[in-house]
Amino acid sequence: MIKAIIFDLDNTLVDFMLLKTRAVDAAVYAMIDAGLNVSFEVARDKIYEIYNKEGIEYQLVFDKMLTELLGEVDYKIISSGIVAYRTARGAALTPYPNVIPTLIELIKMGLKLAVVSDAPKREAWLRLSYLKLQHMFDVVITFDDTKQRKPSAEPFNLVLKKLELNPEECLMVGDWAERDVVGAKSVGMKTVFARYGDTFNTQNPGSDYDINCISELINIVKKENKLI
Amino acid sequence: MIKAIIFDLDNTLVDFMLLKTRAVDAAVYAMIDAGLNVSFEVARDKIYEIYNKEGIEYQLVFDKMLTELLGEVDYKIISSGIVAYRTARGAALTPYPNVIPTLIELIKMGLKLAVVSDAPKREAWLRLSYLKLQHMFDVVITFDDTKQRKPSAEPFNLVLKKLELNPEECLMVGDWAERDVVGAKSVGMKTVFARYGDTFNTQNPGSDYDINCISELINIVKKENKLI
Repeated sequence: MIKAIIFDLDNTLVDFMLLKTRAVDAAVYAMIDAGLNVSFEVARDKIYEIYNKEGIEYQLVFDKMLTELLGEVDYKIISSGIVAYRTARGAALTPYPNVIPTLIELIKMGLKLAVVSDAPKREAWLRLSYLKLQHMFDVVITFDDTKQRKPSAEPFNLVLKKLELNPEECLMVGDWAERDVVGAKSVGMKTVFARYGDTFNTQNPGSDYDINCISELINIVKKENKLI
Repeated sequence: MIKAIIFDLDNTLVDFMLLKTRAVDAAVYAMIDAGLNVSFEVARDKIYEIYNKEGIEYQLVFDKMLTELLGEVDYKIISSGIVAYRTARGAALTPYPNVIPTLIELIKMGLKLAVVSDAPKREAWLRLSYLKLQHMFDVVITFDDTKQRKPSAEPFNLVLKKLELNPEECLMVGDWAERDVVGAKSVGMKTVFARYGDTFNTQNPGSDYDINCISELINIVKKENKLI
């Protein structure tokens, strides 16, 4: 019997690539506006080059970009970029359609909810709080809690321990087959592939279920628990 | 002849204490909401106690508060607080009435505009950018540019050098008599006391002028330059 649903965060509950793209685009426009004398493409490509090297959560990306492009950090330019980034991110930081009603329905059905994310602790929790989802989950496991990324068994074993459940009582939902599906399967959980979060639509997930909308989870749980 | 107006930032262009109060109050409510089990007053007083010790711009104030009150940083609590703080600050971060039209009028009159602030470089520029004032000023001097606070002559001498003007060609506007008026006078500038920013209304400024609204600067410049 399924007693808990465990979610990946980025591209499963929130369209992370959309908000990153919108925030970076707005920041680049604002920095050019404030005197950054390079083309939109050059600035944007430099930002993603730094993200590729330092990680997508790298907080000093604009400091590094300006140092590499201009030899120094111009504070009029960087402050304009940071404010535009935060404003655009705030506007784009909304859950995927049907996330909130589905989570509430699952809670009503008596299920526990959890998150297992490879994002750093602070950034994962800040996104949950911006999304107003921080009160929904019984357990949240982030990269810093085990220092291991999915598909390592460690974050999955930790969430099971904190939920006080066995793996066969849990359903893992995620958009990254190699991490979310492979990892959850390896410890014995049932798996759901969030196809709506798979931007390039290239993955062959090997999961027990495959969904195009998060609301499909309701019937999956009912079916698993022999309620329909 | 007056050729430039130099402004203090906090409590002269923006009501800094209002935005700090609103942001802290919102953060405390959100942290209690997220499980912080102390009274509103205890949490708020602890935050201001830390600000008094570490400085009002101290960025890790919630980390320190939670460590002192709970022995550790709970990420659900802190992320809820940070998001509420930022949201409330964003809403309260607007210039005082008449700031933008007055600055534009002064630019039309051919004057240069500058800021001399004791705030750290990054925070001062971020506030200017949130206020959408970052394009208005020819020169911005922050604490980090001289490592000296007003009334030291150093930030005033640096702004004069960057403006390429003599002190008698400049009018300094600020809400803190001991810093803004005393410092500007000591290098030979004319001074304007921003009484509307003097929350406790206790100061005897000793300035050349005393204003209740920033728009009064227009006539002060006209009078100084013998246009009326």
